[in-house]
Amino acid sequence: MKFVTAVRNEQRFIGMVKEEDQVIDLSSLADIKSVDFPATLHEAITLGFDFLGRAEELVSLEEAGKHTYLMSEVKLLAPIPRPGKNVFCIGKNYRDHAIEMGSEADIPEDIMVFSKTPTSVIGHKEGIPSHSSITNQLDYEGELAIIIGKTGTGITKDEAMNHVFGYTIINDITARDLQQKHKQFLLGKSLNGTCPMGPWIVHHSAVPNPENLRIVTKVNGEVRQNGNTSDFIFDIPTMIEELSKGMTLEAGDIIATGTPAGVGKGMKPPVFLKAGDRVEITIEGIGTLRNEIVE
Amino acid sequence: MKFVTAVRNEQRFIGMVKEEDQVIDLSSLADIKSVDFPATLHEAITLGFDFLGRAEELVSLEEAGKHTYLMSEVKLLAPIPRPGKNVFCIGKNYRDHAIEMGSEADIPEDIMVFSKTPTSVIGHKEGIPSHSSITNQLDYEGELAIIIGKTGTGITKDEAMNHVFGYTIINDITARDLQQKHKQFLLGKSLNGTCPMGPWIVHHSAVPNPENLRIVTKVNGEVRQNGNTSDFIFDIPTMIEELSKGMTLEAGDIIATGTPAGVGKGMKPPVFLKAGDRVEITIEGIGTLRNEIVE
Repeated sequence: MKFVTAVRNEQRFIGMVKEEDQVIDLSSLADIKSVDFPATLHEAITLGFDFLGRAEELVSLEEAGKHTYLMSEVKLLAPIPRPGKNVFCIGKNYRDHAIEMGSEADIPEDIMVFSKTPTSVIGHKEGIPSHSSITNQLDYEGELAIIIGKTGTGITKDEAMNHVFGYTIINDITARDLQQKHKQFLLGKSLNGTCPMGPWIVHHSAVPNPENLRIVTKVNGEVRQNGNTSDFIFDIPTMIEELSKGMTLEAGDIIATGTPAGVGKGMKPPVFLKAGDRVEITIEGIGTLRNEIVE
Repeated sequence: MKFVTAVRNEQRFIGMVKEEDQVIDLSSLADIKSVDFPATLHEAITLGFDFLGRAEELVSLEEAGKHTYLMSEVKLLAPIPRPGKNVFCIGKNYRDHAIEMGSEADIPEDIMVFSKTPTSVIGHKEGIPSHSSITNQLDYEGELAIIIGKTGTGITKDEAMNHVFGYTIINDITARDLQQKHKQFLLGKSLNGTCPMGPWIVHHSAVPNPENLRIVTKVNGEVRQNGNTSDFIFDIPTMIEELSKGMTLEAGDIIATGTPAGVGKGMKPPVFLKAGDRVEITIEGIGTLRNEIVE
C-alpha cells in the first residue's frame, strides 16, 4: 500500500496509489461517507490511527471511480510536506561512500547523525533551487527513508521494526562547500528545497526486506549510484536503537538512512549539479523520486 | 515586557510578567473579554500578531487583579514548549570556550551550526534527567537564545535585528561523550530534557543591547561561567545573515547563541553534572533559568 499527499483543484488530500498511474482520494471519500479521517498523513501516523484498516474501508466504498484520479491529474507533495522536527540523517552509512568522501579513516565506528530542516522538504517533481549564489558544489545523495509509526524511547533492536510505519525516498541534496566550511553539516544540508521526498510512503507490510533493496541514482539518465541497502554499516534496528537512546523517537519522525557510493563529489574530478540537471532515485519496491535543478 | 507559557489549575495560558513575582493571565482575560487571541506564544509569534499591542490592551482590561497570580501559584513551561523544528545552536561562539574545548585551532573561522530536537525542550525548574545509563559526561552550557519574530530568507545584517522578536535563556546541556563519539553533535545534544529554556521571553524592546549582557552560570551556587555576550565571535546580525542564506528562518525559530568559557569539560580535571546538582544561568536583563539534575 502506497500513500500520497496530493493536491487536485487546490484541494489537498490523502491518497492511496491504485496501480502506478491512479490514485484514490481517501479524504474526499471519507468526507462524503462521513467517515472519521485525519486531515494529513502526518496526523494519521502521529495519532496511531488504524490507517490501513480505514483506508481499505474507504476504498471499498468507492463507487464508479468517482474519487479515482489519474496521477497526471494531481500534483504530489512530499508525503509529509512539513515534518514536525528536522529530518534525521545517518551520515556515511555505506562503506564505499565513506571512503569516496575521504579515505578508509572516514568509515564511522559509531553512528553519525545530523539533520535537515523542515523548510528544506519538497515533493516529487518539484524543482530544486540551484542556490548558485551560495554554493557551486550542489550534490545528490539517494537514500531510503524510514517513517516512524510508533513513539518510543530506549527502543531495542528486537522491538525496532515494530516502530516503523513505512518507507519513502529522500534525495539528501548537499552543498559540499558549505558542508565542509561549517564543519557541522546542518547548514550545508538545509538550503530550501534540498530535501526532495516521495513520491509516496510505502507501508512496511509491502516491504518485507528493507535491507535488501537496490538503490539507483541517475543524473540526466546516467547511472551514478548503484547500491543496495544490504550494505548499510548500521542496519535499521541499530539506527532506531541508537537514535532512541534517551531521545524519544516520535511517530511521524523521518530517518534518511545514508547514501551509497557514487556522489558527484566522489567523481574524479568532482562533478556537481547545475540548473537543468534531472536527478532520479529508484529504490526497488518503493518507486522513483525525480527532481530537476532549477535556476 | 516578559511573556511566559504557564499552567494553573491544569489550564495552559500565555502570561505577562508583572513584577518579578506576579503574572497576568492574558489567555483568560482574552477569553472573558471576547478578545481575539492566539492559543500559544509560538502561534502569536508565527502569526506576526501585534502581540504587544494586544497584550497591553488586555492588561488595561484587568480589573481587581482577578487574572493576576503569584508566580508561586503557576508552573512555568518553556516559553515555546514544542518548537516547530529543531533549535538552532551556534557552536564555539566565544573564543575562550573554543580554546577550552581543545586548542586555539578550535576557534571557528566560519559559523558552526548544529541542532537540538524539540523533544529535548523543558521549562524553568523542570528536572533534567541524568541519563546515567547513557552518559557519564553530562555538562552545562549557559546561552542567550534569540526568538525569531519575522520570517525571511537572505536576511542582511542591516535588516537582521528587525527579525528578532525577543530573547530567552537556554541551557544547552550536552553529553560530552556522545558529542565526541558521534562526531556530528545532534545525538549528544538531544537527550530528553537537555534543552531547558526560559523562564520567559523578553521582548526585544526591553533589551536595547543584546550584545553587552553579562552571562553567569552557577552550579550548586558556585560560579562556573562568567562571560559577556560582547565576546561573541559571530554577532547576532551575522548569525541571522548566515543562517538565512538560502534557508528560510521562520517566526518562532530559536537560535541558541553559544556558550562562554567555564564548562565542566574545560575544568582540570573535568567535572560533570550528577543527580542533585542545581544549574542556574543568569543573563543580565533577561532573568535566571534554574534546573536540577534528577536521577
